[in-house]
Amino acid sequence: MILTVTLNTALDITYTVGTLTPHTSHRVGEVAERPGGKGVNVARVLSALGHETVVTGFAGGPVGAVLRDLLAPLPPRDALVATAGSTRRTIAVVDAASGDTTQLNEPGPVVAPEEWAAFLERYAELLREAEAVALCGSLPPGIHVGAYAELVRRARAAKVPVLLDTDGEPLRRGIAARPDLVKPNTEELARLTGAREPLRAARDARRRGAHTVVASLGADGLLSVGPDGVWQAAGAGPVRGNPTGAGDSMVAALLAGVVEGIPWQQNLARAVALSAATVAAPAAGEFDRAAYERLLPGVRVSERAVSA
Amino acid sequence: MILTVTLNTALDITYTVGTLTPHTSHRVGEVAERPGGKGVNVARVLSALGHETVVTGFAGGPVGAVLRDLLAPLPPRDALVATAGSTRRTIAVVDAASGDTTQLNEPGPVVAPEEWAAFLERYAELLREAEAVALCGSLPPGIHVGAYAELVRRARAAKVPVLLDTDGEPLRRGIAARPDLVKPNTEELARLTGAREPLRAARDARRRGAHTVVASLGADGLLSVGPDGVWQAAGAGPVRGNPTGAGDSMVAALLAGVVEGIPWQQNLARAVALSAATVAAPAAGEFDRAAYERLLPGVRVSERAVSA
Repeated sequence: MILTVTLNTALDITYTVGTLTPHTSHRVGEVAERPGGKGVNVARVLSALGHETVVTGFAGGPVGAVLRDLLAPLPPRDALVATAGSTRRTIAVVDAASGDTTQLNEPGPVVAPEEWAAFLERYAELLREAEAVALCGSLPPGIHVGAYAELVRRARAAKVPVLLDTDGEPLRRGIAARPDLVKPNTEELARLTGAREPLRAARDARRRGAHTVVASLGADGLLSVGPDGVWQAAGAGPVRGNPTGAGDSMVAALLAGVVEGIPWQQNLARAVALSAATVAAPAAGEFDRAAYERLLPGVRVSERAVSA
Repeated sequence: MILTVTLNTALDITYTVGTLTPHTSHRVGEVAERPGGKGVNVARVLSALGHETVVTGFAGGPVGAVLRDLLAPLPPRDALVATAGSTRRTIAVVDAASGDTTQLNEPGPVVAPEEWAAFLERYAELLREAEAVALCGSLPPGIHVGAYAELVRRARAAKVPVLLDTDGEPLRRGIAARPDLVKPNTEELARLTGAREPLRAARDARRRGAHTVVASLGADGLLSVGPDGVWQAAGAGPVRGNPTGAGDSMVAALLAGVVEGIPWQQNLARAVALSAATVAAPAAGEFDRAAYERLLPGVRVSERAVSA
């Protein structure tokens, strides 16, 4: 199975309003709820790709109970650890006409030291059956900033390939623990390295400890810098739609490719196509299977004649 | 005891952000939750005024469970009726620097006919011990628009003084059932009657069936039109602060005065002072007791020499 870790799971709530106008009152038309947090999203895509998937991390309080109820009928297996504090809500306010979205993200529960200890125990057990692990998203309050570094080291000690997808100081510390794969976007790379040029930034990130860096470049696809050299992969043309979840789909595709042992170029092509098929899907975070099949042959993967 | 009815209770959630900017992402600093809906707010103020208070209406689902947990340690007694659907959330997004608030209100659960029937049974039981009843706020989906008219008639049949505080078609229908008291603000009055001038609009509302109309005029206090004539009551000067809940405090004061049997002029003075003391309190919907004591002697109540 493939394990995904979401330390700061979320109940994703979507509100549809006419137009969001600050300092006025709005009647919400439609309310939708789904279990969220990056690792949960990655697990859903992995399941849709046919992989047995387990989600761990934290959930607690009344919001956590709703999240787990919504997760229960879905394919990813729930191996979340309980917290006394309540799981956070994230609210996406969508303007009905334009589809423009305003996001409000709660910080998440304060995780107590004994809850973190319980998680580490659960994580160690799950690593025994895992073929790969993805560590995804922000840290809830109360967890030390080196948490991802600790989880990377434990995965490496267990000889389980580990992908890290986070931001800021947790990424900086986590990358130093030498994960197999990191998947920053250009903003996250720039914050980490100070460099805005993707190749320069990705090389810097690699020097900091990541075995392979796959930088997601939005509509321009991705850039991979690793032991196999420098690769660029991009779709045939721009795809219209909602980019929410495109990065999570890229993580899922990469991890699936690692577990399936397919050639790296093919893996990158699938990652670009799946990410674009997520943009094309009407529902945020879902991917359009027909679009995926259609887009895949159009992805161009080319090696760049520079050193990694 | 005094009974308050909140058919569309709410979990009031307050988010503090830097500045709300549409179509961007926000990390919420502080998250606060409290049990809400107009009748619940009125009950809290009545309890603070020393009155035994019971809240009824509907609550259901995981959000309803949180609301009831938050209500449990408070003085108002919980006599809410369970719904299968989940209680709504209302989200107030407060800009940290300015205090300006953006409101997002969910519609509420669809109440089934058998849930409405269960409520009517509970309402009839509670009316037997009630000295007065307040019917407050919007109707959740699934409840017929004449619901308040039905509740007014039942209160009158039980000889319990009834105050109605709602808006739109539910107010239009409810007022025709001859409630003892309605407390619209100027916008609600204008929507009901088409008249923007408060005296004209209040007289029209009285002709539609209300025994007494108390129109809240914001910083200008209130206008009362009833069998005792036309009265105006206003504080000594403007009060700075958050007007959220000022109307609910006015309802609570009026109802307390009715139950205590104090002279109408004194009741109006207390209503103005309590409303202003709610504006002055730092927390939305709370009132500042010291401000209330200080403001009360400054309220001027004067009779207007016109017919009601």
